[in-house]
Amino acid sequence: MAGPIPISPLALPLPSLPPVAGVSMAVGQAGIRYQGRTDVLLMKFAESTTVAGVFTKNLCPGAPVTWCREILPGGIAHGLVVNAGNANVFNGVAGQRAVEATAAAAAKTLGVSAGTIYLASTGVIGEPLPAHKIVAIMDGLHADLHPDRLADAARAIMTTDTFPKAATRTARLGGVDIAVTGIAKGSGMIAPDMATMLSFIFTDAAIPAEVLQPMLAKAVDQSFNCITIDSDTSTSDTVLLFATGQAGNKPTDDPTALADFRRALSEVLHDLAMMVVRDGEGAQKLVRITVDGAVSNHSAKRIGMAIANSPLVKTAIAGEDANWGRIVMAVGKAGEPADRDKLAIAVGGTWMAKAGGIVPGYDETPVVAHMKGREIEIDVDIGLGNGRATVWTCDLTHGYIDINGSYRS
Amino acid sequence: MAGPIPISPLALPLPSLPPVAGVSMAVGQAGIRYQGRTDVLLMKFAESTTVAGVFTKNLCPGAPVTWCREILPGGIAHGLVVNAGNANVFNGVAGQRAVEATAAAAAKTLGVSAGTIYLASTGVIGEPLPAHKIVAIMDGLHADLHPDRLADAARAIMTTDTFPKAATRTARLGGVDIAVTGIAKGSGMIAPDMATMLSFIFTDAAIPAEVLQPMLAKAVDQSFNCITIDSDTSTSDTVLLFATGQAGNKPTDDPTALADFRRALSEVLHDLAMMVVRDGEGAQKLVRITVDGAVSNHSAKRIGMAIANSPLVKTAIAGEDANWGRIVMAVGKAGEPADRDKLAIAVGGTWMAKAGGIVPGYDETPVVAHMKGREIEIDVDIGLGNGRATVWTCDLTHGYIDINGSYRS
Repeated sequence: MAGPIPISPLALPLPSLPPVAGVSMAVGQAGIRYQGRTDVLLMKFAESTTVAGVFTKNLCPGAPVTWCREILPGGIAHGLVVNAGNANVFNGVAGQRAVEATAAAAAKTLGVSAGTIYLASTGVIGEPLPAHKIVAIMDGLHADLHPDRLADAARAIMTTDTFPKAATRTARLGGVDIAVTGIAKGSGMIAPDMATMLSFIFTDAAIPAEVLQPMLAKAVDQSFNCITIDSDTSTSDTVLLFATGQAGNKPTDDPTALADFRRALSEVLHDLAMMVVRDGEGAQKLVRITVDGAVSNHSAKRIGMAIANSPLVKTAIAGEDANWGRIVMAVGKAGEPADRDKLAIAVGGTWMAKAGGIVPGYDETPVVAHMKGREIEIDVDIGLGNGRATVWTCDLTHGYIDINGSYRS
Repeated sequence: MAGPIPISPLALPLPSLPPVAGVSMAVGQAGIRYQGRTDVLLMKFAESTTVAGVFTKNLCPGAPVTWCREILPGGIAHGLVVNAGNANVFNGVAGQRAVEATAAAAAKTLGVSAGTIYLASTGVIGEPLPAHKIVAIMDGLHADLHPDRLADAARAIMTTDTFPKAATRTARLGGVDIAVTGIAKGSGMIAPDMATMLSFIFTDAAIPAEVLQPMLAKAVDQSFNCITIDSDTSTSDTVLLFATGQAGNKPTDDPTALADFRRALSEVLHDLAMMVVRDGEGAQKLVRITVDGAVSNHSAKRIGMAIANSPLVKTAIAGEDANWGRIVMAVGKAGEPADRDKLAIAVGGTWMAKAGGIVPGYDETPVVAHMKGREIEIDVDIGLGNGRATVWTCDLTHGYIDINGSYRS
């Protein structure tokens, strides 16, 4: 890359981020890879904090993912350490030692057990993580902990991200107002070099870990798992939800009582997922694909993902070409039930193709105008059932090649 | 696109193509989409010609694929009509009528049954195929049939191809010399707009259709099904093998007697498949990926394809970066058994990573030199079993975006 990556044209401003009771944090410069910017985040959670986590399905996960998976059954979190610049993946025993050293240093300075320290790393793969650089600044970070640094936290975890990502909501739970605030980084869903997807969500609600976990898993499934930049899957993807129990609500597992919290959690995750797509490497357009009429919701999602991951569909969108032939191709290659003679396709709300062919008298004027915009909407009706899903992606542009074809060198 | 697509730097020259006894052909300009070049191919086969075919697995196939599938059980071929510029896909009843009109016209001029006329179309999707333009030149093509026009045939079926593709071998069968010659087009494996993969192979051997079919299916599985440009699957991919029975061998189904024919067929298909990859849209480098030590050959192929289809691996290769971290990621996302601590990766014959980490003292000098070449070799050892597979792809470059982001407009 000659010079920094320009800010995505789809970027959104960072919202105002009020503190979440029970969460304090500090950011520092360890110089792991980047110079002149923050690259380490330390967070401290109230003693009552419960935790839920969802991790990459990649079978070659990073050492921090393995660590988090091991301690998650404990259900309690007292700290979080995140570093940017080195993913600590594929480092063998050295990777495991770096994880242990980082957790031990954080546990010592916070006065808690290492088994309650969550870790995440993002950056290059296969280079030893210099954990000593993180350990060296740990006491300084501890001395600097403050509740009102969420925006700094969002910046410290960035890698190829061109803008910091955060979202916040409030909800009613057990008669009290609670906060749900999240930060995220990621600019491929997936790129293992520099674009792992990490997200951390904080709430002051009191919710048992065993209640938190299925809610997080479902919300991730409907947000982060509905977006794709380039079909690759990072070795480090991590979403953690921390509930500090400081809001004063009575813990509950009643689904009705939790409905508003679930709504707030879903909205925060949805917002963060959209920001990740908006910062997709090289993205010039945000693309929503809704598939209706599939034989099941699962089938609809697979068809949607086949369209969203098709390089031919994505390059056509980059070229502002409403190329529904490529959408037909992508539906057909999904391997899900489909009948070309029942298929209908709309772009920007205009139905271009129905019943296996182009709509007679189809006027492409509104579609051409829609394709020139920043937000592209594609609707596909399979015509076989009631299955429905929406997925999001971005276009595939020269910027993606620029970023990924020359990053490391 | 401003101006024509430049010839691939990986292009190979067209070999000398001697006639195949029992095959004659003519090419013509129907002006379906292209002006000033040939776009229709008519072939006539000896009355004794048997046929085998393998077609796209896309569930929204083109009308010509449906037609070929319907007549294939007959096992006899007397003619072939191929047009470039319009794929006759997603045209509903009009597509079916275009197919019938073309087959009827060819059958009439050749004096044979329409059920022995094979058809293939490649080009844009969803625009009605003006079959009348093909029908109008059919008698002229018939008058012009000649055995020595295979090179012209290879050119007439091109779309975004930057060079014509053909391969030829001889084999011994039943005591006589027989010819095996094939032509192909395709410059994504897959692109439905203009880059469908079509291949037609001709032999003068006498081989029953029921013996031909499994041989073709296996040879396709080991050649065309081991290459990928961008993971998309055309609605029109078609491979047809015609055996004219003019060589004078006695028909046989004895596997031993057919061994040398199988070898020649495999070599022709392998050569053609390599040419398709070499003409991959925007390709600057040909990439061979061999996966060893997987739990099965099937598992090895799935891992190889996950690497070959990874946009991050492909852009890294375009950037001449031996980014083995991205290869680790791709192995992990394949969903096949893998253990990151047993994984080994070599580029250009140099083992960079072994046993879950970088090789101590690894010197990247030879790897850097290898990455600057036109032909890139990646070896992955999973370390779990004896499964092995080799797949081929090309790099992902700005050229791919240029071609696919602005073709139709």
